[in-house]
Amino acid sequence: MNQPSSTDRRPVVGLMLGDPTGVGPEVSAKLLASPVARELARVVVVGDARVLDLGMADAGVRLEVRKVKSLAHIDWSAPGIPLIDLGNFDTAGLERGATSAECGRLVGETLKKMIEMAGSGLDAICFAPLNKGAIKKGGWDYLDEHQMFGDLTGHRGFFCEMNVIPEFCTFRVTSHTSLRKAVDLVQPERIEGAVRLAHDMLTRMGKTPPRIGVAALNPHGGEGGLFGDEEITIIKPTLDRLNAAGIACEGPVPSDTLFIKALAGRYDGVVMMYHDQGQIATKLIGFSKGVTVTAGLKAVFTTPAQGTAYDIVGQGKANPSGLEHALRAAVNLVGSRAS
Amino acid sequence: MNQPSSTDRRPVVGLMLGDPTGVGPEVSAKLLASPVARELARVVVVGDARVLDLGMADAGVRLEVRKVKSLAHIDWSAPGIPLIDLGNFDTAGLERGATSAECGRLVGETLKKMIEMAGSGLDAICFAPLNKGAIKKGGWDYLDEHQMFGDLTGHRGFFCEMNVIPEFCTFRVTSHTSLRKAVDLVQPERIEGAVRLAHDMLTRMGKTPPRIGVAALNPHGGEGGLFGDEEITIIKPTLDRLNAAGIACEGPVPSDTLFIKALAGRYDGVVMMYHDQGQIATKLIGFSKGVTVTAGLKAVFTTPAQGTAYDIVGQGKANPSGLEHALRAAVNLVGSRAS
Repeated sequence: MNQPSSTDRRPVVGLMLGDPTGVGPEVSAKLLASPVARELARVVVVGDARVLDLGMADAGVRLEVRKVKSLAHIDWSAPGIPLIDLGNFDTAGLERGATSAECGRLVGETLKKMIEMAGSGLDAICFAPLNKGAIKKGGWDYLDEHQMFGDLTGHRGFFCEMNVIPEFCTFRVTSHTSLRKAVDLVQPERIEGAVRLAHDMLTRMGKTPPRIGVAALNPHGGEGGLFGDEEITIIKPTLDRLNAAGIACEGPVPSDTLFIKALAGRYDGVVMMYHDQGQIATKLIGFSKGVTVTAGLKAVFTTPAQGTAYDIVGQGKANPSGLEHALRAAVNLVGSRAS
Repeated sequence: MNQPSSTDRRPVVGLMLGDPTGVGPEVSAKLLASPVARELARVVVVGDARVLDLGMADAGVRLEVRKVKSLAHIDWSAPGIPLIDLGNFDTAGLERGATSAECGRLVGETLKKMIEMAGSGLDAICFAPLNKGAIKKGGWDYLDEHQMFGDLTGHRGFFCEMNVIPEFCTFRVTSHTSLRKAVDLVQPERIEGAVRLAHDMLTRMGKTPPRIGVAALNPHGGEGGLFGDEEITIIKPTLDRLNAAGIACEGPVPSDTLFIKALAGRYDGVVMMYHDQGQIATKLIGFSKGVTVTAGLKAVFTTPAQGTAYDIVGQGKANPSGLEHALRAAVNLVGSRAS
């Protein structure tokens, strides 16, 4: 009874309620109140019970919550939503709609606990919107949460933020670094890392064989070397080697046509050379449907692309569909991995 | 009779038929066959009569063409389409659908003649798709046609490619240069040049006062200096000076949210730091409606964003709406300037 039933193929997904200053608790409560969450996965909330209460109040819903000591203590056939109450945050006096170091501390701490659980029964971690700046202020000194996850999971090797919209996924050769440094970091090892990761993740998502388009770095792809030669000296030779090794990929494609082609259905995944190249495109195409994944780590991490939405916090207006997309992506990535 | 009637306020626009290897002649013939061209402007074709014949054959239309010696010889009340026949290209033996140095030579030569006319009666130059590579091969050694126009018009000072879609316009701090060099070129003088030009062009288009958004260079706008400091040391101080001087502008705005805001109607114009920043966005939003303008020169130059479309050349399938948008933009820019 204490173990997940062997006939229940739904993955076990830990839900983190997000930064309490934002809409995370509200969208979490709304998602948990819908039948979708239960159909997709065995969802366990990890966090402070008072934050979930806050979310229920914001959302105007009442959930049947069942506190459990640990994953092993969950009876998945019992009614209600299991909650592992960390008891690590007091919502009294909380100021909503503003960055809080204390909330950043909490978010980092909660994710760390969940990462520990990922080795023993938790298939994926899905988290409601957090605030990167708050996490840093709260004592977790990383450039972004992906770096934190990589460090806390003790990962070695290439991994990167992956962005999922219904039309296609993106993978990053470089990410949260200055554009000047990004240009320097566009090197064969990173390009190969990103393309191989795209190949693996897309395969896991059932895209076989995955169709991958790789962005050029320079305008017009360098126009034959006239506007920069990284396409000729670095990107093309790397893609040639990958293709020869059986990792099919197309490029370098000038980035102002690459995303039009991806949108038209030519690619399952796009490998971008720098952050804004892909983010301009994916946010324009499908911001509200976007999901952010930390790709390449053993644990699966997903979160909606939407942020803490401080302008509408506590008003009951926040839309849970982004978090639902994130949960679906987590299930998709776990499910295909397991099969 | 030889002079434009003083009561006829339609501007005089010279139409160049584009590179004969592509769909330029076809879309030109189609546009000239519609009543729209005549309603918008007094259009005179400048080029070889044989290329216009080719366009009519491609388009399956028959135009009444009236050869004239010069602008001064045009009777705008007479029927038919005036053509200044340069007699500078023989279409016999022309290979369609492939880059041709000879066609590049022709295109450059024709545009040069039109630039000479721009000083004496031609209000604007609207050109059908050309091939940048062909122009270079044809002996016009410029990075792009904008550089050619700047040189041939003897322009001094800042000017740049401007991209027009129905939703907003973009202006460029840097353009056809490697991304590495673009980062170095993001300096106060160029930013000021681009913002002032955006202000002038948008004002000319009737946007008063123009609402201008300026892109950041780095991801997340540098995240407070964490991912690059050009926003803090260069862009923001320049925008502060411009705002103090009465040139209202907002920024730096991270480029993955800037275009979402522009699309939502917040800006009339966007100033981008490098080529693909704006081109990824404008091509995704409105490629088929896009118009390219050379902004900042005394003469008005417009052309559709679409290219020579070699894959459908000679099939009668080419859509003239891009060229119509380019003609409208020319009329818009000339008309407001005159008023």
